[in-house]
Amino acid sequence: MAAKSKKLKTKTSSKTKPVKVKPGPKKLKIVLAGFGTVGRSVVKLLIDDANSPFELTHIFNRNVERKKVDWVPYSVRWTEDIDDLLSSDADIFIELTGGIDPAGDWIRKALCAGKSVVTANKQLIAESMAELQKLARESGKRLEFGASVAGGIPAIIGIQEGLSGDRLNRIAGVFNGTCNFILTKMEATGASFESALKEAQELGFAEADPTNDVEGYDARAKLVILAQAGLRVQVRSEQIPCWPISSVEAVDFAYARELGCTIRQISLAKKEIEDDAMSIRAFVRPALVPTSSLVAHVEGSKNLVMATGQYAGQMVFSGFGAGGDPTAVAVISDLYSILRNGPPSPNSVSVPVDTPKEVNGAFTAPYYLRFVVKDRPGILAGVATVLTRYGISIDAVLQRPGYPHSALPFIITLETCTSANLGRSLQEINRLEFHVEPVLCMPILMD
Amino acid sequence: MAAKSKKLKTKTSSKTKPVKVKPGPKKLKIVLAGFGTVGRSVVKLLIDDANSPFELTHIFNRNVERKKVDWVPYSVRWTEDIDDLLSSDADIFIELTGGIDPAGDWIRKALCAGKSVVTANKQLIAESMAELQKLARESGKRLEFGASVAGGIPAIIGIQEGLSGDRLNRIAGVFNGTCNFILTKMEATGASFESALKEAQELGFAEADPTNDVEGYDARAKLVILAQAGLRVQVRSEQIPCWPISSVEAVDFAYARELGCTIRQISLAKKEIEDDAMSIRAFVRPALVPTSSLVAHVEGSKNLVMATGQYAGQMVFSGFGAGGDPTAVAVISDLYSILRNGPPSPNSVSVPVDTPKEVNGAFTAPYYLRFVVKDRPGILAGVATVLTRYGISIDAVLQRPGYPHSALPFIITLETCTSANLGRSLQEINRLEFHVEPVLCMPILMD
Repeated sequence: MAAKSKKLKTKTSSKTKPVKVKPGPKKLKIVLAGFGTVGRSVVKLLIDDANSPFELTHIFNRNVERKKVDWVPYSVRWTEDIDDLLSSDADIFIELTGGIDPAGDWIRKALCAGKSVVTANKQLIAESMAELQKLARESGKRLEFGASVAGGIPAIIGIQEGLSGDRLNRIAGVFNGTCNFILTKMEATGASFESALKEAQELGFAEADPTNDVEGYDARAKLVILAQAGLRVQVRSEQIPCWPISSVEAVDFAYARELGCTIRQISLAKKEIEDDAMSIRAFVRPALVPTSSLVAHVEGSKNLVMATGQYAGQMVFSGFGAGGDPTAVAVISDLYSILRNGPPSPNSVSVPVDTPKEVNGAFTAPYYLRFVVKDRPGILAGVATVLTRYGISIDAVLQRPGYPHSALPFIITLETCTSANLGRSLQEINRLEFHVEPVLCMPILMD
Repeated sequence: MAAKSKKLKTKTSSKTKPVKVKPGPKKLKIVLAGFGTVGRSVVKLLIDDANSPFELTHIFNRNVERKKVDWVPYSVRWTEDIDDLLSSDADIFIELTGGIDPAGDWIRKALCAGKSVVTANKQLIAESMAELQKLARESGKRLEFGASVAGGIPAIIGIQEGLSGDRLNRIAGVFNGTCNFILTKMEATGASFESALKEAQELGFAEADPTNDVEGYDARAKLVILAQAGLRVQVRSEQIPCWPISSVEAVDFAYARELGCTIRQISLAKKEIEDDAMSIRAFVRPALVPTSSLVAHVEGSKNLVMATGQYAGQMVFSGFGAGGDPTAVAVISDLYSILRNGPPSPNSVSVPVDTPKEVNGAFTAPYYLRFVVKDRPGILAGVATVLTRYGISIDAVLQRPGYPHSALPFIITLETCTSANLGRSLQEINRLEFHVEPVLCMPILMD
């Protein structure tokens, strides 16, 4: 019905009285909160499909008047009162407003009102997945959040359902398209972090305030969701340490290349069981990866999710992890999932989710240390002495020509060591007096 | 229950009287036909999970006595009479025997007897997916075949459900682990096809009769299934042309490398709509791919599935596409899907599947031609004359030193041309008298 009205010349004046069209017998009624980039794409995709089994009845947005567009069917009611959606007879509530409040309350109310919920809200799902899933089960309704992680990549369903027969013990990958755009731009053109960020902002790949992306908070929320979906562990965002990509400089790509590597923002969570106690090692940080690895091939704003299981080994999912249309595909796929599968089976056993004894960013790996120093004799000896005291072996020292003696970059790569040991040695090394800036430390991830 | 009996010392003598253990209240009863590599892994994974919500009651195999193992719980009944499974009170019938007959009949009988079905049978699903899905719907039961394509890679669920909101127009990838093992071995070591095949056979990656793999028939069945699941088109295996990988020689890898490429067995199906008529271009054949592409990074027996949609762009799934444990993960994931989702929702709209007006292997691309000739003056002029007559432009000619004049390999790469035009010109070229073997022709796939 909705789709057929597409060609109607719709008035967009605020005086337009919306007319409710009676839905066809089989259509599921849906309401949408949030008409931003993703919301617009969702509505466009719904309208594009002449045989859509869904009928959109309401669109909510703050200051809705400035959001109205003339290509949305006349039958859709625009509103800035969320209660119009929550009290409607819709089957499914789509939440695309983002943020914890009031989105979380709206989702709770929608579930209690007997609506299934589809959301792309990673902050909220990262914080409240278990609670909201419990509420959905108790309400006999579905909560789907495929769009909350990696946009168009069906990572959640792939991991949670397609690999439910495995026991996953590691989730890793490139989860933030903005950082990946910046790093691949620096890699390809030798640009500085600042100019790559500026270009990302101009092209709409980064927000005016890029903190969430650059500091790793966005990727961390996705890691928390994937850890729960795949590793079946309850981790809180604040338990996972993040390192910003802003400390990576053009010279690091030059040195990485000499090591057969490049640099990516890597999110990683690993489940470890020792003496019957389960712990999680997790971080979001820039890291060196071999240029021959799949992660190194994730270009521009794409994402990649790797899941490693006890039985099926490593699975990789990659594609466009953000943007209006790819994220809208995830939202609409979730609508189809609800349509196809109906309410949760009473038979359905909820997957047990454990709370780890400990969550930390400790990570045993070879490491890359980049120094910028005021050159003088004895620097390498000073660093080597400290490392030796902590039992850490140097693998290689590289120093490229062409830099001033007053701010000379060089690197040291270390053989596999624990991050605890390395951290202690770096505290001492950073206290030495020749540094122009603090040592940049990145793990070298070989798989 | 089944899992708890794991530690019992079970007698394996044929005189053992199986004792039926009363299932726990929530367990779904399952029966398994086919105790080969995958069947054994399925049972192992079920037993490994102490909290499994499934209870295995029967295992069927021909000559079952020689199949019995002592690590299967005492409560499981071994049988060589399929009716023991079909007439049991099991909820789910797992079919892992392979082949069209009698597996198809068993699946039909199981569905009619009110059992959901999980199968890894690609030949059967490629031939009868639509019919069996219809029967399952009419029976109010589920038919799951995630294990029929690419083993542990959740490609079917990823494409059919995770991307259901998109409109896919292209499915492509590396679908056969045996061919990929052989080709990557030739690439890495310079081995001949014959010696790489022999090694694959010795390591258990290829069967004694490798026809199905080498000729492309195995990959083709998977392509048919993915085309139906993703492109929503009904294609028959025999409509898709296959080229064997056995005509690829070590020298082709050397030339490919000079072109920045390597060689993979590529399966591809592309949906094209012209004048409201939909047609499918599809093939399984060895092709050149850039060494920088994701396909080139599929190593050994791994698989890779690419799905390209109108909205979400290109998605990639990769991992272990075969082997007991990865395929068992797909089977068990399908069991969980049935458990979680219960019977198909009455609300569920079956996805319309179209029959294309035409299916053919015609493909417009740059091409690679490899000649082996008895050297004499005028060969290149002869070939160029024919190509020019068909309006085909030569991009490059490469001839490596060090080969005998009596069997001299050289290559010609062509600018983009239609396969129809190329085919006609090759008929003429192959009639020229200097050939030691027929011209090998491979498309160069850039995406």
